[in-house]
Amino acid sequence: MRTLIKNAWILTMNEKMQEYKDGQIVIEDDKILYVGKPKEFDSIDNIVDAKNCLVLPGMVNTHCHVSMLPFRSLQDDCPDRLRRFLFPLENACMNEDLAYYGACYGTGEMLLSGITTFADMYYFMDKVALACEKMGIRAVLGETIIDQPTCDAKNAVEALKIGEKFIEEWKHHPLITPMLAPHATNTNTEEIFRKAMEIVKKHDTLMMTHVAEMDYEMTYFRNKYNMTPIEWLESISCLNQHVLAVHCIHINEADIQLMKKHDVKVSHCPVSNLKAGKGIAPAKDIMENGVAMGFGTDGASSGNTLDLFIQMRMFAGAQKTKYHDRSLFPAKEIVRIATIEGAKALRIDEQIGSLEVGKKADIVLISLESAHMFPVYDPYSILVYSANASDVKDVFVNGKQVVSDRKLKVDLSILREQLQKEMKEFSKKAEELSK
Amino acid sequence: MRTLIKNAWILTMNEKMQEYKDGQIVIEDDKILYVGKPKEFDSIDNIVDAKNCLVLPGMVNTHCHVSMLPFRSLQDDCPDRLRRFLFPLENACMNEDLAYYGACYGTGEMLLSGITTFADMYYFMDKVALACEKMGIRAVLGETIIDQPTCDAKNAVEALKIGEKFIEEWKHHPLITPMLAPHATNTNTEEIFRKAMEIVKKHDTLMMTHVAEMDYEMTYFRNKYNMTPIEWLESISCLNQHVLAVHCIHINEADIQLMKKHDVKVSHCPVSNLKAGKGIAPAKDIMENGVAMGFGTDGASSGNTLDLFIQMRMFAGAQKTKYHDRSLFPAKEIVRIATIEGAKALRIDEQIGSLEVGKKADIVLISLESAHMFPVYDPYSILVYSANASDVKDVFVNGKQVVSDRKLKVDLSILREQLQKEMKEFSKKAEELSK
Repeated sequence: MRTLIKNAWILTMNEKMQEYKDGQIVIEDDKILYVGKPKEFDSIDNIVDAKNCLVLPGMVNTHCHVSMLPFRSLQDDCPDRLRRFLFPLENACMNEDLAYYGACYGTGEMLLSGITTFADMYYFMDKVALACEKMGIRAVLGETIIDQPTCDAKNAVEALKIGEKFIEEWKHHPLITPMLAPHATNTNTEEIFRKAMEIVKKHDTLMMTHVAEMDYEMTYFRNKYNMTPIEWLESISCLNQHVLAVHCIHINEADIQLMKKHDVKVSHCPVSNLKAGKGIAPAKDIMENGVAMGFGTDGASSGNTLDLFIQMRMFAGAQKTKYHDRSLFPAKEIVRIATIEGAKALRIDEQIGSLEVGKKADIVLISLESAHMFPVYDPYSILVYSANASDVKDVFVNGKQVVSDRKLKVDLSILREQLQKEMKEFSKKAEELSK
Repeated sequence: MRTLIKNAWILTMNEKMQEYKDGQIVIEDDKILYVGKPKEFDSIDNIVDAKNCLVLPGMVNTHCHVSMLPFRSLQDDCPDRLRRFLFPLENACMNEDLAYYGACYGTGEMLLSGITTFADMYYFMDKVALACEKMGIRAVLGETIIDQPTCDAKNAVEALKIGEKFIEEWKHHPLITPMLAPHATNTNTEEIFRKAMEIVKKHDTLMMTHVAEMDYEMTYFRNKYNMTPIEWLESISCLNQHVLAVHCIHINEADIQLMKKHDVKVSHCPVSNLKAGKGIAPAKDIMENGVAMGFGTDGASSGNTLDLFIQMRMFAGAQKTKYHDRSLFPAKEIVRIATIEGAKALRIDEQIGSLEVGKKADIVLISLESAHMFPVYDPYSILVYSANASDVKDVFVNGKQVVSDRKLKVDLSILREQLQKEMKEFSKKAEELSK
């Protein structure tokens, strides 16, 4: 099966950052067969006209809790929301059906916004994986391990078992890369972290965990160990190339040196962090030290929308302001973080993250039709400072077209209806707690 | 002429912040005749179904340079961009036709994003006013006064004359409120400021000026007068209820007390300020002191998109982070700033800014159809943390429908074509300067 994308303004995001103003892409099955100037090809089955569109690699969301979709817009501005609303609601109402339909809807939203790969930490991950399969999105998925009873495990030891079983069952799936996700440095014991790391090493996969996110987390490690959370992870032999450290708001220079030394990856979630008033991660120092960093949306409970356009725009504003320098992180670099750097952070940059022959055909067409998308002196600038999720027109994952002319292959209104039906108890309980 | 808007989830933004979950609005000519629960009305000429929409007052953009549309995406990340690109390009290429077509396109973009009133500082303001008339948008417009030769005046004295003439000619127009706009505290002499204030007082209108925006502005006033720009304005009798102070990034507590004392208004442009890395205005302190403050998009050259959704979202993130408090500026308060508080800042809150009987019918319908607009526990939360410009469905200004089902009455592609044609010389010069 061959698809031709023609009349394309292509931003390859390859090492040389090559662009083709009037280019074409040929997809063969799940892979990119050709990227470059127009050229004749035989046996084209399908033609997509990219006129007046920018074409770039599918965007990579390095941190999400996609099944938390039902929490969106609930008590956004409430202090200590995690313990007042999120944990109680999860324990009372989250189940495998809600996790599944939340994931169907949330992955639909991601695809519509040009995200073709996401990394997720949550519960009932076999259901999340089924949702990804149904929706046709690429995903790196890990069961949450946390030292408390949850909606799918009575304790961390049981969660580890569920997590490893999930890895074994899904490790050969073409779209899913299973991993493990110990919740945070301060919500698991040393023993659990060590065991999680063993499993991760055995299966050569990622360990995603929240690090240096909370004020009280920092205080806890300072008081108990006289260490930072990063130093503590190193001290228990859990800081290495398998670690995807999420947030890293409060890391210091010494932490960054440790992360560099151990080839740790970072997921930075600017929208979620800013909204919670938590602080601004030192992204300049992270990236100048060559530590791989991608963007994460976080869950809809925290970052609200599941798209990287808002991450790019708020990242630019926050970093330029933090370092008082408008020239810091030019738009081109920010689009790199949303694509190829994100793929590096997930250790799948050999497969995705740029438009190159032999890579998986994860491709996004972004329309320049909307009022805010003109004029275009710099395509990266228009992507970072103007575009929003609604400008995404067509999306391919693994060679298959999953969004056509702004519409999902699966009807969004049906996904919403199914989720809404499944949310009945949840919504009732949410209202009770809000009183 | 009577229009009925039915099945509406209405956020009135009135003093009591009343809401109607299944409400209706009746427009008679240019005014709101009724807001409330469904009720029978005679002689309805036109019915608009607001099913699955939020309905709120038209948003108020308190600072723009709308004709600078041609600059969008040009050298966004370049240091000292104002003097390297903006001033030279304006002097070489800005003319009345470009100002006019830029304003047609830019006001079209604003209407599509739910902005029904904007305040503007630029050149060729009679052309900008004609564009507003054509597009059907409400505007507060002031000629720029600056102590250097510009594209429409050889010096500040001439600009003052042009500015006053503009006020006299347009002061009785139903959509236009003319004002005066001395460019900034550090780009005009004391004498010019005093003369501008005389004119403003004579016509009882606004004086919009950039204040406490630039680092070098602060240094200049400190070195020359041992004052802040706000203190200097007071010292020359130019700080009073007519002043709309734009940016106010670097104001201190004493400045805020002066502004409060003199009933000064503030236009805050978070997206523009963050992107330029200039800093974050102390909005909490401004508003806690009862100083009226609205949001401004700034020009497309600086803030890129002409919509208030991105201002709301980035404002929330920046302020919560600056003050390290997620509960600061809850979403409801932010929607107030985008509507009724903006109207107060422009001194037209008796006419617009809320949905109340007798006010002008400036009304916006925002669709909840998009993936990111579900679920809705809190309508203000969904507006601030989820919505984008593309969710605006229908817009009324002064009782007339100017956007229907996401389309302008005037075809956007024609506006783009006209502007593009007019931009030929400009684009060429922009490319030359970029080399």
